[in-house]
Amino acid sequence: MNWKTVVKTLGKILIMEAAMMLIPLIVAAIYGESTNLGFVIPIAILLVLSVPSFIIKAEGVETNIYAKEGFAIVAFSWLAMSLVGAIPFVLTKAIPNYVDALFETISGFTTTGASILSDVESLPRSVLFWRSFTNWIGGMGVLVFILAVLPKSSSGAMHVFRAEATGPSVGKLTSKMGRTARILYGIYIALTLIEFAFLALGKMPIFDAITTAIANAGTGGFSVRNASIASYNSLYVEIVVSVFMFLFSLNFNLYFLLLTGHVLKALKSEEAISYFALVALSMITIAFNVLLSTETAITSFSEALRYSSFQVLSLSSTTGFSSIDYNSWPTLSKTILLFLMMTGGMAGSTAGGIKMSRLLILGKSTATDIRKMVHPREIITVKLEGEPIGEGVINSVRVYFITWVAILITCSLLISIEGYGGFLTNFSASVSCVSNIGPGFDLVGPTANFSGYSAFSKIILSIEMLFGRLEIFPLIVLFSPSTYRK
Amino acid sequence: MNWKTVVKTLGKILIMEAAMMLIPLIVAAIYGESTNLGFVIPIAILLVLSVPSFIIKAEGVETNIYAKEGFAIVAFSWLAMSLVGAIPFVLTKAIPNYVDALFETISGFTTTGASILSDVESLPRSVLFWRSFTNWIGGMGVLVFILAVLPKSSSGAMHVFRAEATGPSVGKLTSKMGRTARILYGIYIALTLIEFAFLALGKMPIFDAITTAIANAGTGGFSVRNASIASYNSLYVEIVVSVFMFLFSLNFNLYFLLLTGHVLKALKSEEAISYFALVALSMITIAFNVLLSTETAITSFSEALRYSSFQVLSLSSTTGFSSIDYNSWPTLSKTILLFLMMTGGMAGSTAGGIKMSRLLILGKSTATDIRKMVHPREIITVKLEGEPIGEGVINSVRVYFITWVAILITCSLLISIEGYGGFLTNFSASVSCVSNIGPGFDLVGPTANFSGYSAFSKIILSIEMLFGRLEIFPLIVLFSPSTYRK
Repeated sequence: MNWKTVVKTLGKILIMEAAMMLIPLIVAAIYGESTNLGFVIPIAILLVLSVPSFIIKAEGVETNIYAKEGFAIVAFSWLAMSLVGAIPFVLTKAIPNYVDALFETISGFTTTGASILSDVESLPRSVLFWRSFTNWIGGMGVLVFILAVLPKSSSGAMHVFRAEATGPSVGKLTSKMGRTARILYGIYIALTLIEFAFLALGKMPIFDAITTAIANAGTGGFSVRNASIASYNSLYVEIVVSVFMFLFSLNFNLYFLLLTGHVLKALKSEEAISYFALVALSMITIAFNVLLSTETAITSFSEALRYSSFQVLSLSSTTGFSSIDYNSWPTLSKTILLFLMMTGGMAGSTAGGIKMSRLLILGKSTATDIRKMVHPREIITVKLEGEPIGEGVINSVRVYFITWVAILITCSLLISIEGYGGFLTNFSASVSCVSNIGPGFDLVGPTANFSGYSAFSKIILSIEMLFGRLEIFPLIVLFSPSTYRK
Repeated sequence: MNWKTVVKTLGKILIMEAAMMLIPLIVAAIYGESTNLGFVIPIAILLVLSVPSFIIKAEGVETNIYAKEGFAIVAFSWLAMSLVGAIPFVLTKAIPNYVDALFETISGFTTTGASILSDVESLPRSVLFWRSFTNWIGGMGVLVFILAVLPKSSSGAMHVFRAEATGPSVGKLTSKMGRTARILYGIYIALTLIEFAFLALGKMPIFDAITTAIANAGTGGFSVRNASIASYNSLYVEIVVSVFMFLFSLNFNLYFLLLTGHVLKALKSEEAISYFALVALSMITIAFNVLLSTETAITSFSEALRYSSFQVLSLSSTTGFSSIDYNSWPTLSKTILLFLMMTGGMAGSTAGGIKMSRLLILGKSTATDIRKMVHPREIITVKLEGEPIGEGVINSVRVYFITWVAILITCSLLISIEGYGGFLTNFSASVSCVSNIGPGFDLVGPTANFSGYSAFSKIILSIEMLFGRLEIFPLIVLFSPSTYRK
């Protein structure tokens, strides 16, 4: 392991986080809040921690990044950012317990949005802003930091990008890594601003519009209201948020294709068509199920569709906002929602979950292998978006899926030890964290939170959120003893 | 597809089933029951259905069996045997509804043991015998029929054997297929007789001892008592049944090794060691969890271990007998049991589930692939029992696992449509059927049954049981349109 490179890059990332923490200081000034020390102290810690990276003298060291270093940089920077990012919650007494604060921060950066807070409305606005801002920062990953510090031509950036990329098909949009990242960030910022504008136009308070837009952009789902989106009781807000939850769960390549005039190619995307079909089918099925059920008070199809489409988009995009307590819906609806929580959004979006492109590769390659079993002489290639998929990609997607299931089951068991919730509570909490969603069912349902779990379970769930957001492999490098051997 | 071969082999299998149905006729005679017509009519149907196989003249046709024919023979014979095997339940009015009777029969032949009957004690003994006997027949599969009708040297037998084999590592014990099968059946019959002897010695009524032994041997778990093994309220019976549930979930290769004096090799089996460790760890964890929980009335560790070991062995061996209502146990215990229901027993046993050898291959190959990702230049081979595992085997195990998960999820969703049970009921019913266990949790728990589901859900669950018992692929051939094309 090239530790010099790791430490040097990490230092620069910590400085970037310090810069990010200046914004809540501005928010505190605007609203006249006395939370300054809560942010100034962690900023000072970040600056001190970054000193070694200035001391290390390493000519050309930054180009010396391979797969292992890429994984290590990503894993260590997410961990370090979360460890320090939790401090403002403790110092402002918003969340006095550090483990709770760390849970909330990891939940923020990983764009999960699972909370241990039962009354967010009582918190200072600077803290609430920082909380929602972690969703936005986490949404596009630490790539921006890397690109800001690495030489543009460096192949190292590609390794970091690969280590952090959400899903298998975040292709290079352009031949230059730096340009690709700037385009992605441009789309991300533009969409966030447009959502803010729409929400502000709908008479949402400016502070709520900003925090909702940034939490939505990262598909995080931290809300500044106790009842989440339901608290606005506004069809307009629900529609705006629904649309943007959907937009942020799409592969950003699609926007690039649209911007460069390749509308047809974007519309023909197999991944997009499958994702749209899954979302639409789920919305309609749940709407009918909720309408016909005697367990709910919903009496018209349009009302049923309003709530079903919001929840389907919220959970499949892995955002986790809620507009109703879907915990009281019939079993079929809840089962569909639980499985949508696993599938997640599209690759190359800010969404979590297994992701549609992986599911397509899993499904197609499995069908092909079964076909080969029966017709051993046939030669069949697996294709996605018209391109043949190599054995290597198929293999890595299968490895991902198997590891994902193993993590889901292991964490479900570990958080069951304390005896807090029933099976659905624990299992849905585990799904929610590994897919970076936020709410689950029963005791972690949309009107509840994660505060009932023990510190041990909160740490397990925090690790699970990191596994989900970093797509498993970087974190395995972090936990592997061979990383620390000479 | 070589249909002549399929029809010819199928005909002979139906005649074998007719022969099997003579035994309940003997039971009826012994107990003076007037259920004769209930068995004579299906016997006549079986004989009529087998007529085409005598008419077809096909010299050497039997040696002409390839993978596809192997799959088709297995799938069609299990289906045909179940369709006719259900008739006695209807004609004797034990289960007047044909869909219910078919569910019970498929549940029997697939060694699931899920029942729609709430009062089995009121049924005629000849019917109860037939019900438990389906567990025994299903336990070792239709291979015996095939071997009885195919030339000993035929390579076709190997294809059928492969198509039906439980788990990936049912190796050829000897170079001759026929000899291998005879050894396996010898072990199966011997163990059944020994269990019967132990139960009879323990003062269990002879009829109960016979039916318990045959239902246990197939890891089916149909009991002739409403409260299953709990109704005997005997520690001795529980120990005997526990031990034999365990013995029947072991790879029969182990017995072969022991019989041929290779004791050390048997003890060194990686699969066996992993399976023993998983079972022991589960027993102890559940015992402590149940003991420390305030939800149960169990107050001593020995009592806790008595119930935990029985349930762990019952569910991991996929038998499904119960000695207590584990539905009231704490969440951790229930979660462990649910995941044990998925893992199942060892390959080459009569048990269902994913099976330990597959889990070992999944785990080892996944760990190796992740290692390769971080250290691309290392060359690592995956080994099981000291032998390298080829890419082809790893691939087929992964395909199996992915398809298994897909079936589990699809069936959970389909049986949720009617709105009968909650998530845990439906999910555990789906796990229970695909792993061929019997009971699940909540509304399908150990003291309940499957009668509350609609005919639609019962058909879905029946198909799922067949998928589980035939290890997926033969059934896919059955449902694939290409099978029926010229």
